[in-house]
Amino acid sequence: MELGVIGLGRMGQIVANRSLSAGHDVVAFDLSAEATAEAAENGAEPADSLADLCDRLDRSGGDEDAGKRIWLMVPAGDAVDATLADLEPYLDGDDVVVDGGNSHFEASTRRAADTDAAYLDCGTSGGPASAEAGFSLMVGGPAWAYEAMVPVFDAVATGPDGHDRMGESGSGHYVKMVHNGVEYALMQAYGEGFELLADGRYDLDMESVARTWNNGAVIRSWLLELCEEAFREEGSELGDVADHVAGGSTGTWTVEEALEQEVPVPIIYQALAERFDSRNEGRFSRRLANRLRYGFGRHEVARRSDEE
Amino acid sequence: MELGVIGLGRMGQIVANRSLSAGHDVVAFDLSAEATAEAAENGAEPADSLADLCDRLDRSGGDEDAGKRIWLMVPAGDAVDATLADLEPYLDGDDVVVDGGNSHFEASTRRAADTDAAYLDCGTSGGPASAEAGFSLMVGGPAWAYEAMVPVFDAVATGPDGHDRMGESGSGHYVKMVHNGVEYALMQAYGEGFELLADGRYDLDMESVARTWNNGAVIRSWLLELCEEAFREEGSELGDVADHVAGGSTGTWTVEEALEQEVPVPIIYQALAERFDSRNEGRFSRRLANRLRYGFGRHEVARRSDEE
Amino acid sequence: MELGVIGLGRMGQIVANRSLSAGHDVVAFDLSAEATAEAAENGAEPADSLADLCDRLDRSGGDEDAGKRIWLMVPAGDAVDATLADLEPYLDGDDVVVDGGNSHFEASTRRAADTDAAYLDCGTSGGPASAEAGFSLMVGGPAWAYEAMVPVFDAVATGPDGHDRMGESGSGHYVKMVHNGVEYALMQAYGEGFELLADGRYDLDMESVARTWNNGAVIRSWLLELCEEAFREEGSELGDVADHVAGGSTGTWTVEEALEQEVPVPIIYQALAERFDSRNEGRFSRRLANRLRYGFGRHEVARRSDEE
Amino acid sequence: MELGVIGLGRMGQIVANRSLSAGHDVVAFDLSAEATAEAAENGAEPADSLADLCDRLDRSGGDEDAGKRIWLMVPAGDAVDATLADLEPYLDGDDVVVDGGNSHFEASTRRAADTDAAYLDCGTSGGPASAEAGFSLMVGGPAWAYEAMVPVFDAVATGPDGHDRMGESGSGHYVKMVHNGVEYALMQAYGEGFELLADGRYDLDMESVARTWNNGAVIRSWLLELCEEAFREEGSELGDVADHVAGGSTGTWTVEEALEQEVPVPIIYQALAERFDSRNEGRFSRRLANRLRYGFGRHEVARRSDEE
Repeated sequence: MELGVIGLGRMGQIVANRSLSAGHDVVAFDLSAEATAEAAENGAEPADSLADLCDRLDRSGGDEDAGKRIWLMVPAGDAVDATLADLEPYLDGDDVVVDGGNSHFEASTRRAADTDAAYLDCGTSGGPASAEAGFSLMVGGPAWAYEAMVPVFDAVATGPDGHDRMGESGSGHYVKMVHNGVEYALMQAYGEGFELLADGRYDLDMESVARTWNNGAVIRSWLLELCEEAFREEGSELGDVADHVAGGSTGTWTVEEALEQEVPVPIIYQALAERFDSRNEGRFSRRLANRLRYGFGRHEVARRSDEE
Repeated sequence: MELGVIGLGRMGQIVANRSLSAGHDVVAFDLSAEATAEAAENGAEPADSLADLCDRLDRSGGDEDAGKRIWLMVPAGDAVDATLADLEPYLDGDDVVVDGGNSHFEASTRRAADTDAAYLDCGTSGGPASAEAGFSLMVGGPAWAYEAMVPVFDAVATGPDGHDRMGESGSGHYVKMVHNGVEYALMQAYGEGFELLADGRYDLDMESVARTWNNGAVIRSWLLELCEEAFREEGSELGDVADHVAGGSTGTWTVEEALEQEVPVPIIYQALAERFDSRNEGRFSRRLANRLRYGFGRHEVARRSDEE
Repeated sequence: MELGVIGLGRMGQIVANRSLSAGHDVVAFDLSAEATAEAAENGAEPADSLADLCDRLDRSGGDEDAGKRIWLMVPAGDAVDATLADLEPYLDGDDVVVDGGNSHFEASTRRAADTDAAYLDCGTSGGPASAEAGFSLMVGGPAWAYEAMVPVFDAVATGPDGHDRMGESGSGHYVKMVHNGVEYALMQAYGEGFELLADGRYDLDMESVARTWNNGAVIRSWLLELCEEAFREEGSELGDVADHVAGGSTGTWTVEEALEQEVPVPIIYQALAERFDSRNEGRFSRRLANRLRYGFGRHEVARRSDEE
Repeated sequence: MELGVIGLGRMGQIVANRSLSAGHDVVAFDLSAEATAEAAENGAEPADSLADLCDRLDRSGGDEDAGKRIWLMVPAGDAVDATLADLEPYLDGDDVVVDGGNSHFEASTRRAADTDAAYLDCGTSGGPASAEAGFSLMVGGPAWAYEAMVPVFDAVATGPDGHDRMGESGSGHYVKMVHNGVEYALMQAYGEGFELLADGRYDLDMESVARTWNNGAVIRSWLLELCEEAFREEGSELGDVADHVAGGSTGTWTVEEALEQEVPVPIIYQALAERFDSRNEGRFSRRLANRLRYGFGRHEVARRSDEE
């Protein structure tokens, strides 16, 4: 089938390439002419505007009724709304638009209601590292639109088992949001284990630990394979990797939704809080505790000036 | 090579069977004659006492100097000490004894010092479910003894990558202890995610969620495959599975060691605390908070008698 | 001075009574004629509508320029907006309106911008139990309006030290929101301590423990006095007080704001999560962990049907 | 009555002084002659050895049968055992020895069993800051010995309500251990609240916040008074107070005992973990998470070398 891909960053290029490799036709557009050219080199038909992309999709359709199939891979947030606004004149109810980014599920529900096309919110997991193996796709929206996209989903995902329709509009990004909350927690859980090993009683080769665990242990996983890779490349002490974890929006959404649903998620919360903590210059809370120990116990107050 | 296996519960039988399948000779003994008979049916040479087992291993050795190779798969704790005490008359410095159970690393260090044989503490992960795929083996103890056991480790583990020598005596069980702490945390992290989905905004097929995640998502893992299996077998609501998580000793050891090392492990701690919580009949702490809200705010006190 | 009090629930009555006791004149109104009558019995001048209340305040003012002084003590949320809408025709820039309830600080900022009167958001802590001792009042809004209200604040608070202007509009309710987050955490912290004592090695008289702590110990506090009272009235085992903690909105707001500010508040979060947990019928997360232990270890699954 | 005080550090001097002020006779000894001299200046009778102290106590007793009354205020641990060993020849069953330090309850139980004298383990809370107001004393051990010491306890505590017998040997230090666990949690709970205020939306005078809360708010407490003092002396930003919280042994014991009793104490644990965290140079766990985000998402890795 024929697919329009809008947004050709790292992830958009992978969507285009995996679709092409599976024999689909791809019309590609990005605000950056360079990115569009890169897709063209890989076999996509370049478009020089959204109008042009829609026009090319319309013309090529042997089957008049089929409608356009468009995959958005633009940054979550305003860029999605701006793209949809620009696309609006060219869309009707036969068309399908997929948002493959990390949008908030409520934004997706709103967009689904506001768009003439059938709108699929598609949580996409695996990251650039999964360019060859394929992604996991969690899809929400109309069943017919999901079915219409299956050939492309088969190509972009690891295969037929790597995608499914979760439910109504928003459910794809909802499940992806929770996926990311769990992801934060898993990373921090492995991190705590390796921290204890690093500070513990034995002088260990962390790559060997991770490899041994990855072969047969209960906690084996892809993230643990990435730990193994990290230790192989950075060493058992992680070299000069800093204690600074960026990101956090999907984890924040997960905790907010858990508050709304009154579901306790202490482990996911803690993993998110560790990120905030890693970006702080000294916790005020602990500075106060330090001072309070003087207050009642006359324990010496550690001062920043002592640290030099 | 020839291996004595002592302790023929579920895990011990797997050790014997995997060794036999790889072409090794196995002499097997269990306090239960039935368990010994089961091993014999699978091809092991049955022994009717520890003395008999040692005698058979000694006689069969074509190579006089090689020493005996014995794998203990008895319950962690007193049973290990009792078995070692009974074996003591038959052991010397050429022999190798492997403890494949979940012993505390300090017990293993003590036993290594007290035993005439070379002593290997071997953390074994994978559980009965890994009978066919093989285990992950984390081994501590003398390098020569580890090397001497490699043919058997290759057979019992998933293969050569599924085992390694972590370091000195105790390090195998130390790494396994931390593995289990991480395991508790991972289970609870997945649990929080699925709980939010179960109580959240969409009516989801949990098996589909888990399967989609297992194919390409960042959080894919063996534990997530077991989640998928659980939902397939129990349904999206987990049927009548109770909120009661048993076990906890290795997780407790992990937290104790983290306290000793002053390493923060809030996520592992929380996962362990959830187990304790699941076994409680009403948290006293929350009962007090309930009552305190009356104390200052004259909020109505929920009473157990209201619940009927 | 003369004060209009609107909303004569438990807290509104206390505001009226403490003002009267300090020699102020109070005009009182509540949608419930009974509540208004109760205030009248205590010495307030009853009004039979908001219009009547404003009219009485306008007429009585010897000093024409002073403007009306009105204290709202209605439930946070729509009731505040509805009351303000009804008051609007009678308010101008000389008037001061105090919202003494638990409004969200953003609602207060909005209301301050939308109201012709000077608007003070006043976090009120102490609860009905503080009727005699007086409240703590955290006030946000225009400095002149705060100054104008000082005589009443002196009366309603414990005294001049029991109230202060925190800053601009919203800051009073902001500080109160955080106060409540801390309050949840303190209650749960004491709760954990008493739970350990209750389940621990000694058979203790909890009232004696709390009393001994309240006299000279570092952790002495008003909440601990309320613990002492609770144990005195309910017994060391807390009788039939249920594991069910109601409420949670201000704690939820605190965590949401901490997410927004990227400030880690793991202890406040945990205290809030305990409330959610106390209202759950079995944690899905732990039910899954229970099942997973079967998945890898073939450990027996505890079933709800086993519990009978 | 007559009291021997052994150990004249800050806390021991207060015990001596408060006893003297209440009209008791004090015989004082410390390994430091200076400390003994200081006590003598305050009215105590100086002893120049443990033997001398016991001899003076024996001679002065008008009532032969009463036995000696000795208060140990030496550092918890070996110093207590060493002192008891030196005292042993002079002690019999009519004597009472009080350990007022922060000993582990199991050490106290052991010492009570090993000492000929009646042994009281006495948790002492309030710290040097409570020299004038008096301490809270949680006492374990034989009832008759507790009764015999009441006149001194009345003097050293805030008064009769400031001390009580918790139960059998060990219970005094047990209750004090839990007290300290709660103390950590309370400090960190206040700390989280003030951290949110410090990083939040308003520019606040923290001393004013603390003072307003201390007058009438639900969370008022002695620790909050110490917060108020800290902000008064250090400023709203806490000046150069470092993010480094020392100590942790009694908190660690609390968590260890909670593990033993299988009681969840997530808030106390978290408060303890914050202390460990404050003493760490970069969390390994978060460094790994940072690197893993590159692993799957090709997110840039923050490096220590970037930080300069």
